[in-house]
Amino acid sequence: MAFSPEVIAELKSIVGPDRLLTSREDLVAYSYDATWMESPPQAVVLPKSAQEVSLVLKLANRYKIPLAPRGAGSGLSGGSVPQKGGIALSFTLMNRILEIDTENSVAVVEPGVITFALQKEVEKHGLFYPPDPSSLKQSAIGGNVAENAGGARCLKYGVTSDYVRALEVVLPTGEIFQTGGKMVKIATGYNLRQLFTGAEGTLGVITKITLRLLPLPKFRTTALVPFADVETACIAVTKIMSSGLLPASIELMDTFTMRCVEEYRPVGLPLGAGAMLLFALDGNYQQVIEAETEAVAQICRDAGALEVRVGKSAEENEKLWEARRAVSPSLARLRPNKFGEDISVPRSALPQIVREIGDISKRYNLPIPVFGHAGDGNLHPNILCDRSDPEEMERVRGAAAEIFRAAVRLGGTLSGEHGIGLLKKEFMEEALGAEQLAFQIRLREYFDPNGILNPGKLFPTGKSSW
Amino acid sequence: MAFSPEVIAELKSIVGPDRLLTSREDLVAYSYDATWMESPPQAVVLPKSAQEVSLVLKLANRYKIPLAPRGAGSGLSGGSVPQKGGIALSFTLMNRILEIDTENSVAVVEPGVITFALQKEVEKHGLFYPPDPSSLKQSAIGGNVAENAGGARCLKYGVTSDYVRALEVVLPTGEIFQTGGKMVKIATGYNLRQLFTGAEGTLGVITKITLRLLPLPKFRTTALVPFADVETACIAVTKIMSSGLLPASIELMDTFTMRCVEEYRPVGLPLGAGAMLLFALDGNYQQVIEAETEAVAQICRDAGALEVRVGKSAEENEKLWEARRAVSPSLARLRPNKFGEDISVPRSALPQIVREIGDISKRYNLPIPVFGHAGDGNLHPNILCDRSDPEEMERVRGAAAEIFRAAVRLGGTLSGEHGIGLLKKEFMEEALGAEQLAFQIRLREYFDPNGILNPGKLFPTGKSSW
Repeated sequence: MAFSPEVIAELKSIVGPDRLLTSREDLVAYSYDATWMESPPQAVVLPKSAQEVSLVLKLANRYKIPLAPRGAGSGLSGGSVPQKGGIALSFTLMNRILEIDTENSVAVVEPGVITFALQKEVEKHGLFYPPDPSSLKQSAIGGNVAENAGGARCLKYGVTSDYVRALEVVLPTGEIFQTGGKMVKIATGYNLRQLFTGAEGTLGVITKITLRLLPLPKFRTTALVPFADVETACIAVTKIMSSGLLPASIELMDTFTMRCVEEYRPVGLPLGAGAMLLFALDGNYQQVIEAETEAVAQICRDAGALEVRVGKSAEENEKLWEARRAVSPSLARLRPNKFGEDISVPRSALPQIVREIGDISKRYNLPIPVFGHAGDGNLHPNILCDRSDPEEMERVRGAAAEIFRAAVRLGGTLSGEHGIGLLKKEFMEEALGAEQLAFQIRLREYFDPNGILNPGKLFPTGKSSW
Repeated sequence: MAFSPEVIAELKSIVGPDRLLTSREDLVAYSYDATWMESPPQAVVLPKSAQEVSLVLKLANRYKIPLAPRGAGSGLSGGSVPQKGGIALSFTLMNRILEIDTENSVAVVEPGVITFALQKEVEKHGLFYPPDPSSLKQSAIGGNVAENAGGARCLKYGVTSDYVRALEVVLPTGEIFQTGGKMVKIATGYNLRQLFTGAEGTLGVITKITLRLLPLPKFRTTALVPFADVETACIAVTKIMSSGLLPASIELMDTFTMRCVEEYRPVGLPLGAGAMLLFALDGNYQQVIEAETEAVAQICRDAGALEVRVGKSAEENEKLWEARRAVSPSLARLRPNKFGEDISVPRSALPQIVREIGDISKRYNLPIPVFGHAGDGNLHPNILCDRSDPEEMERVRGAAAEIFRAAVRLGGTLSGEHGIGLLKKEFMEEALGAEQLAFQIRLREYFDPNGILNPGKLFPTGKSSW
């Protein structure tokens, strides 16, 4: 159902006719993200300023129009899918790097900047923006902040929220304010910047971001370590992490994942092994990094590694990391659909959770390849499936629920870096408890009294995603 | 005015007669913190569990009794002073380290644990809890979380909030919940743990804290560097911080501060100089630390350092850091009172802000020694004064307001690590803007509908602190 001529006229008066899209093709193009979720908006609005966003939000409140903010649509939880129709608010045109302040080591950017473009730009100044979601060449930084995106380097460097120094946000009711600043330390009022970060576009719309930057480390090593099975690899991870050494990344792939990646993008992964770790170390002193790499290698050997292959050149290493980032698309080719999980557990629980996932895979007769950021206990079991088969989807639902429950039982949670969106909202009560869930739902209502921002997402209200 | 026999009886039924204090001496003992603020409660309650806290809060709601949570009373903003009377909720008896989990590198503690005691305990396991407020031998970790405490090592390692992995909180209305967990990554609902952290006990009462720990660095160097004046020292700081090197600490003292400390605790500070920097580097490789220390020293020399004294022994170094931590008590001896500020500015603004503070000191004819965590732009200008002189206090008020305004104008804020409490609440509108301040006040009302938690603090409502 299209908007009334009145609403269309008002939207046009805010952004002009060129930045309001309503053709069927445009609506389809803005109806999905990187999950299987899909739902077209009634209009796409492309703002160029916080003031325009504020006017659109005020209009949406007046007419009770749902609104889904959107970066690059590369999300993995349905967070930007316009589930209830309404307006898709796309930040494609707000994609400027406004400032790289080398004296204070911060970048000030608009939400539509592509993560990788930001990284390349700050690196020209010898600076470093560490968070590196696998989608970094497609994902927008605004989406990264909204979902609190992670990535392989987050083991050593922390996730997106660890880099958010200030945000300009537009509240659901249209007020614009700045929270935080370029200063390092703030103990002045409530930390709203961390409340908006990871709120999945439900508490406000982010229109400007100030990000902390680090000095770019000078050296980096990569090593690939095959193991007989996933559990042994996970035990090695817990040993590395209690040794006092801190690799930049420790990534895990099981044999199934390795085979998929190797078919899609051959780089010579050890297909005979049951699992592999891919780790990186970085720093400013070549000798230190080499010594630490050898120390990690030795821990792996002692823990039963089949071999340790230390990368010979930056090019070779980069190929391995490209392969790692290609896991998600490569798995997507195997079966019509995949249900990608993103559980996060205390790292001591890693061996136990992979055992349980293996067990669940067998019991439900479903392929569940496991990969992810083993070093910080954040795994991506992906249930491969065919959504056109209702019997199979019943099993998928059962298996997913059991994995979520195992993660929570082991002291972990539903999502480490993808967010909840539409995909996992039904499990939020188990993750947060009834009391905290009710509190969070009421808190959202306080911010967004008319429920216009991303309705039906994050909490178990509204249509199911299945 | 004492509580009614009814309230007293109910409190006794919750915590028993031994943990309810109402004698005049007890009320006086719980009426102050480390500022000049003072106001006695009507009763002191010493809970031993979250359940007891919940019952006390429910009672406080029923009778509309103000309640001030309290760690060790070492705060520097009046945050724990029972300004409106009512109940002082002291966590002295909830002071257990519940768990040190070496596999997941976390400690689970009750809020009354003394910061230094926690540090010593985790160090026995080769672990490291970096935040180190100068009061660390007196301060309670619950107060550190409530105020988002910092310290000298926060330059490299971040502040308290960077270590809060989970909190058990009791909401003002009595609900108990846990937010966060032992896992590293969470993208599952709103980040309430960072909202409660630094909220100065106005949104909930913290009853359990899970803290991230790091591996304890093996080596540490300290160097003392005198400069001709404060501004030159600050320019050196900005040069160090844009060099790619990252000292653990860079502390600043002006000549006035040095003289005070030296009188109070003589350690041989360079009294002839106009200012000094005290910096520390730490890490796991002696050679690297030594090379980096020399690199920082060279930057200092190039920037006009009068000399560079690298510490010869751990004992000698520890004496210097003890002297640094003694700054606040040593200044307190000079004049009857001191108004301690805690401004935080982008570090590029350091030279400018110290120039302006010098200027304000002259114009208002008040001694304003400056010291603090120069590396992260967090300074403590202390206005020394005599509260019994109304004319002088008018000038103190004027000078303080000008310093706050200068910090905000230069892109900074009122407080970097002490919080707002009673001391700086009148300046919150200038720091946050009217719109955000109104929003934060409404947010607080949403959490605490009866306004029982720390009323009159953080926001410019209620009695003035002057």
